[in-house]
Amino acid sequence: MISVILTGTGNVATHLFKACYNCDEIEVKQVFNHREDSLKYFADYTATTTSIEEVKDADFYLVAVSDNFTQSSCEKLKNKPGIVAHTSGSQALPEQDNSGVFYPLQTFSKSKDVNFQEIPLCIEGRSAEAADQLLKLGQLLSQNARLLSGQQRQKLHLAAVFACNFSNHMMSLSEEICRENDIAFSLLQKLILETAQKAVQNAPAQVQTGPAIRGDRETLKAHEEALRDKPNELEIYKLLSQSIKNHGNKL
Amino acid sequence: MISVILTGTGNVATHLFKACYNCDEIEVKQVFNHREDSLKYFADYTATTTSIEEVKDADFYLVAVSDNFTQSSCEKLKNKPGIVAHTSGSQALPEQDNSGVFYPLQTFSKSKDVNFQEIPLCIEGRSAEAADQLLKLGQLLSQNARLLSGQQRQKLHLAAVFACNFSNHMMSLSEEICRENDIAFSLLQKLILETAQKAVQNAPAQVQTGPAIRGDRETLKAHEEALRDKPNELEIYKLLSQSIKNHGNKL
Repeated sequence: MISVILTGTGNVATHLFKACYNCDEIEVKQVFNHREDSLKYFADYTATTTSIEEVKDADFYLVAVSDNFTQSSCEKLKNKPGIVAHTSGSQALPEQDNSGVFYPLQTFSKSKDVNFQEIPLCIEGRSAEAADQLLKLGQLLSQNARLLSGQQRQKLHLAAVFACNFSNHMMSLSEEICRENDIAFSLLQKLILETAQKAVQNAPAQVQTGPAIRGDRETLKAHEEALRDKPNELEIYKLLSQSIKNHGNKL
Repeated sequence: MISVILTGTGNVATHLFKACYNCDEIEVKQVFNHREDSLKYFADYTATTTSIEEVKDADFYLVAVSDNFTQSSCEKLKNKPGIVAHTSGSQALPEQDNSGVFYPLQTFSKSKDVNFQEIPLCIEGRSAEAADQLLKLGQLLSQNARLLSGQQRQKLHLAAVFACNFSNHMMSLSEEICRENDIAFSLLQKLILETAQKAVQNAPAQVQTGPAIRGDRETLKAHEEALRDKPNELEIYKLLSQSIKNHGNKL
């Protein structure tokens, strides 16, 4: 039986906890967090503690806390016997020996269940041995666990910001335009899902549509005019239209 | 039997043709386009012509050409007996009497079949009578046909540019970052689909994730540093991160 101790109680920690808890070959020995109230959920299933002194010995310590605290949380565990790995896409490998990264590439919300087996797990180890052990743990949880260098992981995280965070913000601005004009945002639902499906099935640059790639100056002008009272959206509209045009010319 | 004549041979025209052709209550009498070779596909199913003089009489003339030619194509048909409606999201209602707009809100690619019944159809008429007739035609083709004012339609089209064209471009920039760093873009596939599903099931602003909304300055700085050789992407990164922060503060 592989023993795991989790640090953190947020979205990533919760989903990682569920995945480990539901795996017959893994025992979640303890959940550690500085805030008592956030441990309530986990206390129904396993031991919990708010004190670093009470943290038990285990094979793995998975640190799923916000990026600002990732390195200090790993550092606190440096004298523990097992491998200490954080789950951040953007943070560097911890300095200490016997450490690694265990980065599940997915956005999580606490209320929505996910099939962890389908989530890409990006793994890095300070030593070949640590990488190997983390990969084995990862393969118990996901069918898509793989080694990725720190450099690649950070670029992947950056790529995810563009593909997911920024595209969500585009939908958010879209929803606002609909709301301000008494249009049901649900009209766009199928179009949005279709856009995402087309983008992942092809190279997205090859399926770019819209006035910018068509060089439809009349529509671009009309849209800019329609955004004259929304300077932030206007600036985004101009910059992205220009970027689409430039990329179109490179194809 | 309702008779329809189509102008145009592009993606919208092709899918609209298929939807009309497969509807028992509609006869596609003719397809009209200035280029002979583009009519080949349609000639297997119905009459075709490149000459405006040869265009027959019909109940509806649906003009599905590129935006630059929309108004002039409608104008050419102004002495015809039926209702002339274009399919553009951004073009104004044609000037002539007995005209309208018949805008299917979807991106089409010729090679991919769509279920037209599920596509929102936005309808506008110069007269109440034209609007009513176009709505009846629309309801034969789609379960989601509805009247929308010209003002609303143009805002909806603008909203679609943000939600679809711009989010596709975000995925395109993401794919480029992956490619340049030997990372499989397919790693992001589930995350992208999940992002789109979450955005349409919720208000997208409520499910915004990422370093900008978290106020994670360290990651923002690291990403900006990683983009130092890509000035276009860096400018986009900064502008969108700031916009996400500003919108987050308004929630």
